Amino acid sequence: MARYTYSYLFDFTSQMLQKMGFSEEDAVRCARVFMSAELRGISTHGVIRLTDYFKLWEAGRINATPNIRVVHESPSTAVMNGDNTIGMLPAIRAMDAAIAKARTAGTGWVAVRNSSNFGISAYYAMMALENDMIGFACTNASPLVAPTFSAVPMLGTNPIAIAIPAGQQPPFVADFATTPVTRGKFTIAAKKGEKLSFGFAQDAEGNPTDDPTAIERGGSMLPLGGDREHGSHKGYCLGATVDILAAVLSGANFGPFVPPMISYLPLLDQKSGEGWGHFFGAMRIDAFMPVPEFKERMDKWIETMRGARPAKGHARVLIPGDPERENEERITREGIELLPQVVADLHIIAKKAGVNFEA
Amino acid sequence: MARYTYSYLFDFTSQMLQKMGFSEEDAVRCARVFMSAELRGISTHGVIRLTDYFKLWEAGRINATPNIRVVHESPSTAVMNGDNTIGMLPAIRAMDAAIAKARTAGTGWVAVRNSSNFGISAYYAMMALENDMIGFACTNASPLVAPTFSAVPMLGTNPIAIAIPAGQQPPFVADFATTPVTRGKFTIAAKKGEKLSFGFAQDAEGNPTDDPTAIERGGSMLPLGGDREHGSHKGYCLGATVDILAAVLSGANFGPFVPPMISYLPLLDQKSGEGWGHFFGAMRIDAFMPVPEFKERMDKWIETMRGARPAKGHARVLIPGDPERENEERITREGIELLPQVVADLHIIAKKAGVNFEA
Repeated sequence: MARYTYSYLFDFTSQMLQKMGFSEEDAVRCARVFMSAELRGISTHGVIRLTDYFKLWEAGRINATPNIRVVHESPSTAVMNGDNTIGMLPAIRAMDAAIAKARTAGTGWVAVRNSSNFGISAYYAMMALENDMIGFACTNASPLVAPTFSAVPMLGTNPIAIAIPAGQQPPFVADFATTPVTRGKFTIAAKKGEKLSFGFAQDAEGNPTDDPTAIERGGSMLPLGGDREHGSHKGYCLGATVDILAAVLSGANFGPFVPPMISYLPLLDQKSGEGWGHFFGAMRIDAFMPVPEFKERMDKWIETMRGARPAKGHARVLIPGDPERENEERITREGIELLPQVVADLHIIAKKAGVNFEA
Repeated sequence: MARYTYSYLFDFTSQMLQKMGFSEEDAVRCARVFMSAELRGISTHGVIRLTDYFKLWEAGRINATPNIRVVHESPSTAVMNGDNTIGMLPAIRAMDAAIAKARTAGTGWVAVRNSSNFGISAYYAMMALENDMIGFACTNASPLVAPTFSAVPMLGTNPIAIAIPAGQQPPFVADFATTPVTRGKFTIAAKKGEKLSFGFAQDAEGNPTDDPTAIERGGSMLPLGGDREHGSHKGYCLGATVDILAAVLSGANFGPFVPPMISYLPLLDQKSGEGWGHFFGAMRIDAFMPVPEFKERMDKWIETMRGARPAKGHARVLIPGDPERENEERITREGIELLPQVVADLHIIAKKAGVNFEA
């Protein structure tokens, strides 16, 4: 494992994006999102993804000088067109717009079309926190997940993030795919030659499977719940709601029409809109209750849950956001570790771009 | 099984509520919600609950002449005080207020405190449909569910409902508890002497169990996902978010402080607010996109999902709301069947109230 400082990887990411034609300001904005994933320990959404974006840019599929714009609005809503750029830029603009709407209207809700993968959802939801607002962010994604009773993937892992400010306690930050596990689990199990647990995947006929290569063989991931008996139709409802808010309502591609983020996969013949879709929300706390009162109540909520007697074999009850915050403290102190394969891939694109990258 | 017509049970419910002191107008409003649960086949939330409310009223725990009022508002938000009445009344008022806010501000979001059990969540979310809006409704409830790694129940089954209008297709209507199954499954399995599947419950130490009497023995229901490996922390995030929006933000009791809805259970010593909490939302479609365009897109979304190849052993892929709509068609035609025990219980309260009820 190679280890890097935050500032080194931040500068590298920003330089790579500038070489792709993004302005310095935009490159820095995106680099903050990539690095937030690294610090929070969500390395699947960190610099490993730079390679995907670089190849998409090489293939002419990403616009580095976008005209991101509001195309429809009301006092508490807006729809934005991301102009086919890297997802972080319209996502930050949209969350800023939601926060601005919330300042005047109490809440703000912004749907985005013609975007792409925006990285880590929590980053945008958390933008609400310093404004004493509750933040929401969700996005659709390439189809990998089968609705309950479907043999074929029709929805993305469609994550949802919710950030809620507290007082003395750290904020509540939930960020989760609407599937039992991430796709990364499949890759790791396959590399190790291990089986998956049942409840994560099905084969090409829709039978339950423990095969970690099921997706490559025409199978699908399953929605949160795993099977019908354990409530997979509820996970399907959640993933579907994200797809509808992010894409049907914004004018983006929905369901199986969401374009791939991998440059060597062909674009689909059929479209149902433009690019990927996201949906953001901000609710001003004092549109409901004075901020100090809410924060005191939220502290009590957190302390109450933390105070629950732990189940046998467990040390404590976690609050959503605890593991990622603890990762952030540790990784800030110890540095960011990258797997050899990630370093090797970054070397290749760094060389192509003419950017220095230490092994 | 005794069978009743809609109008017979509707009138009976309305009369019972009027005997408890509700105005005719309020009694009719509530009866519509009870009957909607019966028609949609969610009989756990239908007239079976009349007995609970009647006993709560006898115990002086329900206010039949409430002064339901807005206590805080902004252009797109409000907080209402339900004045300790039956949950349906503040819920309908709050959803009406959310819809009115959405008309002018684009969206409306209303939190309610000092309420009680409001019955079936989908009823309120669906109020948005005829206004060409997307509707949301959620509520907290008595603590039965253990957060991931907790040995003790700290959250309710905290359901979420989402209703989205379509054009030629029927609307998308999701309504689900944030647990794998409802509590009703436990009761039925216990009566039949059957075991549960694992993933639904844990014992008093937090160990997985298949015992359907686990809750009575100090155990808990588990969040959607079932165990940590299968994503129960995501179900916990959902249930927690509902609790925070419905109760922390409204000023209601949250988490383990939610008061029981069973008259013979003592009220808790400790409070964290007033009564139960709910949260409602309405988003005007044309605050995002012209209504005809959205409905056409939503039809295509529904047709696309319906058109997915079914998994082996299944006839078709369902859209959220399909089973309940099919129930409604059938039950409207065939009548409403009540279990003998439900009929017997209704007889008892009917006699007490001096209302006629046919066996």
